[in-house]
Amino acid sequence: MSSTPALSAPSAAVHFDHTTIERRELGERDVLIDIMFCGICHSDIHQVKDEWGGSIYPMVPGHEIAGVVAAVGSAVGSFSVGDRVGVGCLVDSCGECEYCIAGEEQFCVKRAVPTYNGRGYDGAPTFGGYSRQIVVSERFVVNIPDSIELDVAAPLLCAGITTYSPLQRAHVGEGSRVAIVGMGGLGHVAVQIAAAMGAEVTVLSQTLAKKEDGLRFGASHYHATSDRQTFKDLRGSFDLILNTVSANLDLDAYLSLLRVDGTLVTLGAPSQPASVGVFSLIGGRKSLTGSPIGGLPATQEMLDFCAEHGVAPEIELIGADDVEDAYARVEKSTVRYRFVIDVATI
Amino acid sequence: MSSTPALSAPSAAVHFDHTTIERRELGERDVLIDIMFCGICHSDIHQVKDEWGGSIYPMVPGHEIAGVVAAVGSAVGSFSVGDRVGVGCLVDSCGECEYCIAGEEQFCVKRAVPTYNGRGYDGAPTFGGYSRQIVVSERFVVNIPDSIELDVAAPLLCAGITTYSPLQRAHVGEGSRVAIVGMGGLGHVAVQIAAAMGAEVTVLSQTLAKKEDGLRFGASHYHATSDRQTFKDLRGSFDLILNTVSANLDLDAYLSLLRVDGTLVTLGAPSQPASVGVFSLIGGRKSLTGSPIGGLPATQEMLDFCAEHGVAPEIELIGADDVEDAYARVEKSTVRYRFVIDVATI
Repeated sequence: MSSTPALSAPSAAVHFDHTTIERRELGERDVLIDIMFCGICHSDIHQVKDEWGGSIYPMVPGHEIAGVVAAVGSAVGSFSVGDRVGVGCLVDSCGECEYCIAGEEQFCVKRAVPTYNGRGYDGAPTFGGYSRQIVVSERFVVNIPDSIELDVAAPLLCAGITTYSPLQRAHVGEGSRVAIVGMGGLGHVAVQIAAAMGAEVTVLSQTLAKKEDGLRFGASHYHATSDRQTFKDLRGSFDLILNTVSANLDLDAYLSLLRVDGTLVTLGAPSQPASVGVFSLIGGRKSLTGSPIGGLPATQEMLDFCAEHGVAPEIELIGADDVEDAYARVEKSTVRYRFVIDVATI
Repeated sequence: MSSTPALSAPSAAVHFDHTTIERRELGERDVLIDIMFCGICHSDIHQVKDEWGGSIYPMVPGHEIAGVVAAVGSAVGSFSVGDRVGVGCLVDSCGECEYCIAGEEQFCVKRAVPTYNGRGYDGAPTFGGYSRQIVVSERFVVNIPDSIELDVAAPLLCAGITTYSPLQRAHVGEGSRVAIVGMGGLGHVAVQIAAAMGAEVTVLSQTLAKKEDGLRFGASHYHATSDRQTFKDLRGSFDLILNTVSANLDLDAYLSLLRVDGTLVTLGAPSQPASVGVFSLIGGRKSLTGSPIGGLPATQEMLDFCAEHGVAPEIELIGADDVEDAYARVEKSTVRYRFVIDVATI
């Protein structure tokens, strides 16, 4: 066991204490990582505030982890001290079920172990990246390509894979007509990835406030959803819509923007059930689907794709004492576009 | 123009008059069909009762039409007098848009013309198969294979293609785990088609009353959805669920029965919006989708498939004066399994 400084939420009140936590002794297949940067994901806020239920306190959030390998176990083959690495939303899975074998560890039959606010197979709570060090099985560590700065890389470990996975699985490419709903932490990465894949990208945002940024990220079109005319003008326009917004949308209105056989993929997770008219699905043989993170092979593929195509989250680097304010700004959608904690300040 | 006897609903009251209607003069690409049999589809009832809105009266329902060619226009190449033929839900489309060219006439950009309760491109109301003759463009006529009796063939023109299309598009085959929700007019055909494709088929019905029939149709398993234990036992079991029920279901409960990447396809169309928890979709990357009828090539393919595999709706043959009673029995789900009108009695 070793102690490491951490930011810990003792309750659902969005207040963090500077504290220390214990990390397990390095197992033979474990990697010890000096965490340099950790992104703030909207799901950190949902979980700290217990908005999804079942939160475990004290909680050390953070699943957008970028750092450098500080030590490796005796049987680790893929990583060496000094390697630039990342850890995303998962830190363990059975490794033996059909999904683990397929590299889709997020669907592990035994259950995948989340990086924080979960329990390992030993029953102990997991603590995430708002801390100086973490010990993780090498199976759940990915390489960060040299061309991506570590602070910029951090948000890719959740926001990147969550948006890359449905785009890649839908075989988005030249000729694809893709809309991205919301241009926050997920959305601004989704626009870049979809554009890099060759799609014609449209941003659907509440207002036109971020239009210049959207076009700079690679979008060809940018429309305000507060203007009802948008839904008339764009009727039947898209093969794929990625909804990155956590709030409940008027799904029927968005489904009407799809072409025949189009798909509306929900990435954000509102706590209230959604309402959908079945005719909105049947008429054009449309689908409403959800997508979580991807597995480890897809996560590495995403990082390599982002390095190759220059996809880079835009971040605001903050110190440990700014996290509470940052949460408030994420909820007000005034962050441009992802907060990243400089972990040296913890 | 020619007159033909028909059953006509003057209002939403589920009352039919014996009357005559006019059919257009035979165009050079038209086929005149002596209708022998017409199935009663649940959507006939929805439309006669104006439950979807916009019904046009007087209404002559019927889009499960089987008969014999009585005359052909001068330029008709595919059909001859005496051919056994069928007409389904559509009687016209532009023939030029991307969907028409792809043989997906149901999505025609100009708009597909429904067999009844719609308007042709000339603005005149369309009248369906509760009548002795119909004139239809040869593009919307299919061949009924010799091995299928005409009365048995009739329900395939809607119930058959509506269930065949999503099964075929999902590439159902050996190893597929398919559940059919509801064993009425659509469901009892869906079970047969899915089993003929090689799937392991499970019926999910309100009670076990039709279990023997379900197994005879090819299902391997049969469960009562009124028993909550069913949802515990079958959690994560299916690749594909076809919902043939018009009433609103607890979608989250049915989505929980899907495996990762599974799809719940809704065929029935309740008039009320459905409620769905987004977590039910995201966690297992599941889809909720809808499917209407298929295009003409798929309809012919379905008929040939049914002939090859011995798929046959079970019907109750009725006379013209029994239609009102039949509607009541369809609504009470006491028909086994599809009413077919002997059109000679009209």
